[in-house]
Amino acid sequence: MKIVKLSELKKNPNFKQIMKRSQQNYAPVSFVVKKIMAEVKLNGDEAVRKYTKKFDRVDIVNTKVSRQEIKEAYTKVSKEFLKALAQAIRNISLVQKNQMQSRALKIVRPVIGVRVWNKWQAIEKVGLYVPGGRAQYPSSVLMNGIPAKLAGCKNIAIATPPRSDGLVAPELLVAADKIGIVDIYKIGGAQAIAAFTYGTSSVTKVSKIVGPGNSYVAAAKLTGFVAGEISIDLPAGPSEVFIIADETVNPKFVAADLMADAEHGPDGAVVLITTSASLAQAVLLEIEKNIGRFSTQENIRNSINSFGLFALVETLDEAIVFANDYAPEHIQIMTKNASKVAKRITNAGSIFVGIYTCKSAGDYATGANHVLPTGGAAKMFGGLSVFDFMRLVECQSCDVNGLRKIKDTIETFASAENLPAHKYSCSVRFKGK
Amino acid sequence: MKIVKLSELKKNPNFKQIMKRSQQNYAPVSFVVKKIMAEVKLNGDEAVRKYTKKFDRVDIVNTKVSRQEIKEAYTKVSKEFLKALAQAIRNISLVQKNQMQSRALKIVRPVIGVRVWNKWQAIEKVGLYVPGGRAQYPSSVLMNGIPAKLAGCKNIAIATPPRSDGLVAPELLVAADKIGIVDIYKIGGAQAIAAFTYGTSSVTKVSKIVGPGNSYVAAAKLTGFVAGEISIDLPAGPSEVFIIADETVNPKFVAADLMADAEHGPDGAVVLITTSASLAQAVLLEIEKNIGRFSTQENIRNSINSFGLFALVETLDEAIVFANDYAPEHIQIMTKNASKVAKRITNAGSIFVGIYTCKSAGDYATGANHVLPTGGAAKMFGGLSVFDFMRLVECQSCDVNGLRKIKDTIETFASAENLPAHKYSCSVRFKGK
Repeated sequence: MKIVKLSELKKNPNFKQIMKRSQQNYAPVSFVVKKIMAEVKLNGDEAVRKYTKKFDRVDIVNTKVSRQEIKEAYTKVSKEFLKALAQAIRNISLVQKNQMQSRALKIVRPVIGVRVWNKWQAIEKVGLYVPGGRAQYPSSVLMNGIPAKLAGCKNIAIATPPRSDGLVAPELLVAADKIGIVDIYKIGGAQAIAAFTYGTSSVTKVSKIVGPGNSYVAAAKLTGFVAGEISIDLPAGPSEVFIIADETVNPKFVAADLMADAEHGPDGAVVLITTSASLAQAVLLEIEKNIGRFSTQENIRNSINSFGLFALVETLDEAIVFANDYAPEHIQIMTKNASKVAKRITNAGSIFVGIYTCKSAGDYATGANHVLPTGGAAKMFGGLSVFDFMRLVECQSCDVNGLRKIKDTIETFASAENLPAHKYSCSVRFKGK
Repeated sequence: MKIVKLSELKKNPNFKQIMKRSQQNYAPVSFVVKKIMAEVKLNGDEAVRKYTKKFDRVDIVNTKVSRQEIKEAYTKVSKEFLKALAQAIRNISLVQKNQMQSRALKIVRPVIGVRVWNKWQAIEKVGLYVPGGRAQYPSSVLMNGIPAKLAGCKNIAIATPPRSDGLVAPELLVAADKIGIVDIYKIGGAQAIAAFTYGTSSVTKVSKIVGPGNSYVAAAKLTGFVAGEISIDLPAGPSEVFIIADETVNPKFVAADLMADAEHGPDGAVVLITTSASLAQAVLLEIEKNIGRFSTQENIRNSINSFGLFALVETLDEAIVFANDYAPEHIQIMTKNASKVAKRITNAGSIFVGIYTCKSAGDYATGANHVLPTGGAAKMFGGLSVFDFMRLVECQSCDVNGLRKIKDTIETFASAENLPAHKYSCSVRFKGK
């Protein structure tokens, strides 16, 4: 890793790759995903079973996790895990409930006799995809499930790929059970998304699918969305951390957070922007000193080499402008007056303020959501929240006097837009009066 | 139009078509749309000019509407239009501002020393597509533009196809100018969406594109979304009205509202569900009596014949259950105790309560937004609002004591998820302490 000057970044041959990060390319999987979706639409559970056999190498007849399996999961998880789960659930719930307070929308009376109001209404049926395979992410269950529950969704189902023994990791089952989700299906990949999108005999069709996944899952979600069958959450790509630091910070902290982000996979993006050349040097040394201790070191090295950037700036202003252009998933502000700097960050998924707000704190325990926009999508999307599980339903009511007060406006617009029956639908209410 | 019993609807050969409504099929245009998008990405303004020539049959070098053109537009619109515009802008602004009040989200302190809060942040650059051609919709400018302005978007640009004289309808220009949008481009179709998606020398790249359009526009928006370049608004299909009425209602009102909805195009959906057979009969008679007076009568007939449903129910309960399953764009409640019925509607774009809340009132003048989900998408999307132009940016901060209180949770989850550097990023902060 070379430390460069940010002002000279555009000259860097790697500039485009650094800005774009690793982008999912659906072209290679698009054909097979469409085939799987079509087959599940046609043959339901039978097609699901076929693809589970093929991809997960296990034959499952009844994909729904039984009460007994959930009960047994409790005997397989540690006490520490149950304790950690309890604090995470509590904190995430507190943060998400706070968002709910903005639900109360009062009635507007633009003229006397006309009332317009909104109601937040939960999406009734949602599907949560939780990745499986080698990794297992009970925290994903919480981050997707708690806002869905608090929003008031009635049917919440989880799909997750079965392990080769035909079971699901007990931590996942316990996490789901603790937040009150009991419909859990041992189905993964595009076949899981297809089952949620179209419904099968055993899986209920949903209106929205959320949760991260590999390129098959992502391509299947997009296919269902384009077909108009489901809505989906923000696109989730490889993890990203962007640290703005000055000379006041302990380089150990910075190195640790960069490595934490980079260990998720070989294509994470890790950016350090600093006013201090000596800090940048010290961070590099710290990484080299410690990387060997992690089983995930290969991911860390690959991420840093492919999508890493260590750059120097003259002023924090320069760093802030670049951060808002880069629009990172996570941004950590480790400078003097960190709060002041944080206020000027407009494009980011989550802003971590101060040196003790380590990346993993936000991933698991502060209560903030860790489902966040990547690849620059923070310019257009926010992190997952209760609002992703609700819709704003509009309500309006006129009495005869109210309608009279807006009659001219209605009729003039209807004429301007050449819609005579629109004009008539207003005027007929005053005929013979 | 035959009046049927709702309970026997499933036997109806038309059942599927009625429930699905007219669905846009992008397959026929998909190839050409992708070609246009790729060409504009590569050749910018030159490609835009080529396709404007081809599709709009006019050669435009400078696509940006000049200040002079906007000034002249004021001399071409009527006084009535200016008055109608003023009331519509006022009412829409009042309704949307009310939504903004839910912006203030206070700080949550899940444990002492940990703070989590959110800020609503406007999407900086947005593009509004406004359809043109034979029709012109100044109301679309207001419904899309006002929430974008109020949300605080900095760059708001409009694209709309030029008329054959190379100009844009003056009503559009005046409506845009009145709400403070001055970046207006005479570009339509997929080439407009491509210009917004990728940017050209004269058009700034945006992060989000909203606004209705034909199948080229819709397919291009989806293409840009799937490519990860832009986010988009809810999918907009043909207009739909769903009326629940009882014997107390004047059939003239019901007939007028059904025709108003059906006149938009040949594929609108018009549904009347009533407890009164004589009302249904009278409404049909009223339509026959009046339809001849509208220049749009062919659209009205086609919509009613293709996607119309007049059905009888025994009880209002039956109507409500069906409405929530159908999930209409507009629903009008014209019954005794209309407010009570409205409260039980959960899946709809906009709920019109009472006999004087005619469909066109909500289209133009009450202040409610008329950009609403169609084709059953009301199960997953709400109408357009300020929230579509904002993102919830997460902020979090721990001090050393706060981090200590959540340390066990972080470390336990990191271990459970096999992410050792995540654990280290927390523990390193307590080394030597």
